[in-house]
Amino acid sequence: MLINLKGKDIICTQELSVPEIRALLQLADQMKKNRYNPQFSSLLKDRTFLMFFYNPSLRTRISFEAAATELGGHAQFLEPKTMRLKKTRGGIEVQAGETIEDAAKVLDRYACGMGIRILETSVDNYGDGNALLREYARWMEAPIINMADDKYHPCQGLSDIMGMQQHKGKLRGRTLLMTWAHGALARSYCSVHENLLISSRLGMNIRLAYPRGYDLPPEEIAKVRKNCSENGSSFDIIHDPDEAYSSDVDFVYSRNWFGPDFYQIGKDKEIARAVAMTDWICTEERMKRTCNGLFLHPMPLDRGKEVTDEVASGTRSIIIDIAENRLHTQKAIMAMTMAGLPVKLETTEG
Amino acid sequence: MLINLKGKDIICTQELSVPEIRALLQLADQMKKNRYNPQFSSLLKDRTFLMFFYNPSLRTRISFEAAATELGGHAQFLEPKTMRLKKTRGGIEVQAGETIEDAAKVLDRYACGMGIRILETSVDNYGDGNALLREYARWMEAPIINMADDKYHPCQGLSDIMGMQQHKGKLRGRTLLMTWAHGALARSYCSVHENLLISSRLGMNIRLAYPRGYDLPPEEIAKVRKNCSENGSSFDIIHDPDEAYSSDVDFVYSRNWFGPDFYQIGKDKEIARAVAMTDWICTEERMKRTCNGLFLHPMPLDRGKEVTDEVASGTRSIIIDIAENRLHTQKAIMAMTMAGLPVKLETTEG
Amino acid sequence: MLINLKGKDIICTQELSVPEIRALLQLADQMKKNRYNPQFSSLLKDRTFLMFFYNPSLRTRISFEAAATELGGHAQFLEPKTMRLKKTRGGIEVQAGETIEDAAKVLDRYACGMGIRILETSVDNYGDGNALLREYARWMEAPIINMADDKYHPCQGLSDIMGMQQHKGKLRGRTLLMTWAHGALARSYCSVHENLLISSRLGMNIRLAYPRGYDLPPEEIAKVRKNCSENGSSFDIIHDPDEAYSSDVDFVYSRNWFGPDFYQIGKDKEIARAVAMTDWICTEERMKRTCNGLFLHPMPLDRGKEVTDEVASGTRSIIIDIAENRLHTQKAIMAMTMAGLPVKLETTEG
Repeated sequence: MLINLKGKDIICTQELSVPEIRALLQLADQMKKNRYNPQFSSLLKDRTFLMFFYNPSLRTRISFEAAATELGGHAQFLEPKTMRLKKTRGGIEVQAGETIEDAAKVLDRYACGMGIRILETSVDNYGDGNALLREYARWMEAPIINMADDKYHPCQGLSDIMGMQQHKGKLRGRTLLMTWAHGALARSYCSVHENLLISSRLGMNIRLAYPRGYDLPPEEIAKVRKNCSENGSSFDIIHDPDEAYSSDVDFVYSRNWFGPDFYQIGKDKEIARAVAMTDWICTEERMKRTCNGLFLHPMPLDRGKEVTDEVASGTRSIIIDIAENRLHTQKAIMAMTMAGLPVKLETTEG
Repeated sequence: MLINLKGKDIICTQELSVPEIRALLQLADQMKKNRYNPQFSSLLKDRTFLMFFYNPSLRTRISFEAAATELGGHAQFLEPKTMRLKKTRGGIEVQAGETIEDAAKVLDRYACGMGIRILETSVDNYGDGNALLREYARWMEAPIINMADDKYHPCQGLSDIMGMQQHKGKLRGRTLLMTWAHGALARSYCSVHENLLISSRLGMNIRLAYPRGYDLPPEEIAKVRKNCSENGSSFDIIHDPDEAYSSDVDFVYSRNWFGPDFYQIGKDKEIARAVAMTDWICTEERMKRTCNGLFLHPMPLDRGKEVTDEVASGTRSIIIDIAENRLHTQKAIMAMTMAGLPVKLETTEG
Repeated sequence: MLINLKGKDIICTQELSVPEIRALLQLADQMKKNRYNPQFSSLLKDRTFLMFFYNPSLRTRISFEAAATELGGHAQFLEPKTMRLKKTRGGIEVQAGETIEDAAKVLDRYACGMGIRILETSVDNYGDGNALLREYARWMEAPIINMADDKYHPCQGLSDIMGMQQHKGKLRGRTLLMTWAHGALARSYCSVHENLLISSRLGMNIRLAYPRGYDLPPEEIAKVRKNCSENGSSFDIIHDPDEAYSSDVDFVYSRNWFGPDFYQIGKDKEIARAVAMTDWICTEERMKRTCNGLFLHPMPLDRGKEVTDEVASGTRSIIIDIAENRLHTQKAIMAMTMAGLPVKLETTEG
């Protein structure tokens, strides 16, 4: 089976077919094993990839820029302040400038693709970030890559899967515990959504644990339920931080996220509520109750709140491998969507 | 005829000979047709090109950085805040730091060339930006490229010509309407000057339309008049936005610019005056009266003020092609001035 | 003798052996003579070098980025604001964020090495900058290169030596005058320390001149004394700006630095004191009393305070050559530590 993603936007893994997801993972794995191999290092020779950061980022910026370099191309770093774009709020123009139509059509002539990162702190309403990506995608033929928006984070999701596979082999039938954690960071949904979507898509059982009131958006949970149902795997919701760590859990993803009323109550109230629930933390004692559970997290870690130092720096932690995978999965995405590298799928399982 | 521009500064097209202009355009055209051809992609291999932005820019930064990449080199992005340069105002030192002499002599050792962008908002008096470029050029042997200053914008001018040629062939004898437009952006002269200078230089008839009081600097108009006179072409000034669109017009360039008293009255007063003249706008109805006129603009567009959406997004608009040309003309400039690529001129007309 | 520095951190030249220093200088010299030679231009092909700037810089940023380019790699520019790092003050967390452990372990997976620049203005106590470098070095296997911290500046020291050798040949037995200069810049010790350490290490006589009260940190002076003693060369301290310029002086390094009580009294008081001592300046008249003395300085120059224009722009000045050497010495460091290029030492003298 030959998979071709030339010209395709990568907004969320749920919008890819399972074979497409597997092709990206297979290529990423080859690229990790042959990191500076000439077969890959000319794929984007002399091409320009644009990275447009509405929100700053350590891993995302460095790994995408390195990915472009390792494919023979060059990544340009863009910020809104250098762009002079028109800004509207509720349909009213609040800053004169260029329309996305005009900017995007020009960028399309210069670049082989563009990544965009826009989190909840840069938008007024949940979903506006994701909508902005789709607005760029509308006007550009070159692929738009989601470098994390307010809803999804496909590169992180692919890297999570790659890391879990590296450490425990086939994932079908394995169990992932996604648990809320306390902390003062009022974190976005994107990495959590993406992990739940792609893990359930590939046949994993999902345990979702969070305090009452911290429900994730119902439309995303509906997709996760449907993925599980189609795979015949289980989907459970638990509201107790201890009970969450059951003996069948293979992977633990402990992460803070804000409540559904975040955009109404604001950051300060959200944080006041979230820091108080100190029992929601991943500890070594809890990890011991799982099935040799491994700890994953998209980083940056909020140590002492999302997870103890003992777990984070211990042998159960695969977070650095997953962070490294960002490079490889992003190279795979760029190679397939921008250079049009086709991938012959070797296996439909994994 | 072999044209060689090795080591030459590119400050304004008026300071180049017509064969030199034609050589740049010819090379840019070849580069557009063979964008990633190996014959071009090693010209600046491993060389560093510096881009010094006193003012931010979308097209200029991305297109120059991409140009360096496509020639095998690397462009570095510099801003004044990272430079620790000495600042003087009226001869008085207002910020301690390095002199341009010292900075330029060092940059000369690292780089194959340097682009500078400095608009009217970064200087106290009209012409100071252009003077700063010439000060750098004085101390550096490597070529200085004007990436837009308060007077000129040679890369834009070359790209305008290239776009007009692509859509209507030979330009000699064709008519360009350069018309002022209303709006709240109090725009600089550089793109307007450059277009008038290079269009008249290459034998086009010029119609210049603007409201009374919006005269362009007399010394630049004198050069345009002289260019027309030497080519036997016409030069007219019109003060009526309707009359401007005559049946012989092949191209329409509609753009806001500030009045000659801008540095005295300030931005707020300039804008208050300019937004009121709403009849100065390029519309489809007016375009229909021209000779299948095409719309050009250096972008970013001020839609609804300089031009209607109907014209801007319609089939008469060649603005995206012109924006793309920025890449090609800049590659041609860099190849000729920095890599010393000689060009055998194929035609002296165009 | 084959010198191999693969994987080694470069924090201060004093921590290298003399043969290691000579190997770097020998390679830098070859790289200067064969700047774009293919033997060097693939050493870091497709590799990512990270430049982390707590303090901005002209020469350092441009020369390191160019060095990476000329070795076939790519340098990424990072600033603290883009990093979301945890910040502590006196052990108290003042900004939530990622630990250096977590950040460094991830960067290690992406990059072939990292340069860090952190001067006294970014830290609360003398030495904190240097300690931060060593903290990164603790968690990363890839080499950490000191791009100037609050104590040392190895790339500058190597470039100084290279420049002096280019102009006067062997340095053993030659005399360097390092003299304090007045001015309003309250400058750091790093370049001064490094020059004193490496010059004395390589057998030069040291004359150190400064006004009473401007002692350099005693632990660094002790190292310089020891270096001189081991080489049988002289070390003198003078407190008179005139007497400093003796007839045996081959090189004059005139530079402002702040007093030992700087962190206590603050910048304003330091400057008030330092600007008053106008007799501490390098002049042509004083240079004439030396042994055809050459002027060196790490730049940026404080003209009219550290040195007169006559000397700075005159034939005795080798500052531009030294600035250029930054490129070559940094390429040598990167080639040896990151690409693991071994160097066969041709001479143990120089």
